[in-house]
This record gives sequence, C-alpha cells and structure tokens, in this order.
Amino acid sequence: MKLEHVGIAVKNLEQSNLLFKKLFGQAVYKSEFVASEGVETSFFQLGETKVELLEGHDPQGAIAKFINKRGEGIHHLAFEVEDIQYEIERLQSEGFEFVQEIPKEGADNKRICFLHPKSTNGVLIELCQEIKE
Amino acid sequence: MKLEHVGIAVKNLEQSNLLFKKLFGQAVYKSEFVASEGVETSFFQLGETKVELLEGHDPQGAIAKFINKRGEGIHHLAFEVEDIQYEIERLQSEGFEFVQEIPKEGADNKRICFLHPKSTNGVLIELCQEIKE
Repeated sequence: MKLEHVGIAVKNLEQSNLLFKKLFGQAVYKSEFVASEGVETSFFQLGETKVELLEGHDPQGAIAKFINKRGEGIHHLAFEVEDIQYEIERLQSEGFEFVQEIPKEGADNKRICFLHPKSTNGVLIELCQEIKE
Repeated sequence: MKLEHVGIAVKNLEQSNLLFKKLFGQAVYKSEFVASEGVETSFFQLGETKVELLEGHDPQGAIAKFINKRGEGIHHLAFEVEDIQYEIERLQSEGFEFVQEIPKEGADNKRICFLHPKSTNGVLIELCQEIKE
C-alpha cells in the first residue's frame, strides 16, 4: 500500500490551480472531469505522490457538501493497492466500514472505493487500483 | 518539493496506532515525543510518503484545538524542501503567509515551519528540511 494522492476540495479550480502552481513551483500536469463523481479535477506531481484538486459541479455532491460543512481543505487520502477486491475483503474482516463496497471508476484511470471516515479516525480514505488494459 | 508526510490528529495515539496498523497492514516504525509542539507522534511508511499520527498533550496546543473544533482527521501536509529558508522567502514574495517565519525543530530530525491555511485554500502546509549532522 502506498500513498497515491491527497485530494483537496476547492471552490474554484482555476484559481486554485494558479495558487498551487505558485506554492509547488510547478504547473498542473493533467486535468480531468470525472463524470461518476461530478467533479472537475487537476493533478500535481510531488515526488511519488500526487496532489489532486477537486471542484464539485453538483451542489448536492460530496465535494460541495464537504465545503459547505467544513470549508475548503484536505478531503481524502488515496492509497494504491495491487488488488482492490482483496483489500476490501481484508479490511471488512478487520471491522472497517465502506461508503460503497463495489469499486467504481474514478479519475486517472483507476477503480476506486472509499472507507467510511467513522471507522478511520475521521479520515476519508480511498483505495485505488490502476485499470490495466 | 515532495510530499514527505501527512499528519493526522488523533485523540488516543495508542488506539490509533492499532487502528492504522490494521488498515495499512503494517506497524508503526517510529514513535517520538516532540517537546517544541507538546505532541506525541508515530509514523507509518506508505511508499515514499509517511503518515504521522499526532496526539496533543497540551489542552491549549494546536492538535487539541483542532480536534475540539473539527474532530479527529487530517491535520496537515508536509513537503520536504532542499533549502527551507530559500522556500520561505520565495513563497513570501509570492504572497503566501506563514504561521511562523523562523523554522523550528520538529519531529523526525527536521527543521519545520507552517504556512497559514488562509493563504493555501484551507490546507495547513508544513515545509520541512532534514537536519544534516
């Protein structure tokens, strides 16, 4: 398991792309609209790990709700695994709860699922596995 | 600049060490009390990046205040830089604000300083530089 990316919820992706470009001293290397989540995303590479900025387009979606409740900020941590199905079963047997137990298609060519933060010390954790052609 | 670690604020480090051990499938590799911050910390290695759990021992300290306000969860992102003084000056000239402008001694043999989250989309960002003997 390695930390694949950190997701940050933002109100205005265009402005935040410029802000984090100044912070990191490098530009976004990829942008992508994720239809399944209704979010516009962009990515920075920081060593082995990425920072993903997320702007929600759906006022009832997870990102908009998060920002309404807590303001902009760190939204989730995503850990890459070799076999997402195996990890879901391993973690369920350890007592962890999932937001959804069937992986769905996420950004960056990955199958993803989220653990429920109430079982992980308030941290929203994504598991992700690269989709191989 | 690379993502060195993610800091997670927890109420009970001992319990959280066990929880994240189950989650990550590996144990804490280091624990350390950081006198300058009044926090007990522990570290997991996830690929190139670490996860640092933090329990505050001072009820008026930053970790206790964070948990009182927002509950347990992701507290900060730490980016490793080659020359922290250079980065502080570069970022100040770009308009970023710092919680403190003079680096102090942090966990894990590092000089650290924090940017103010109001200038970074609500994300508390630490810069860190390894102290070389």
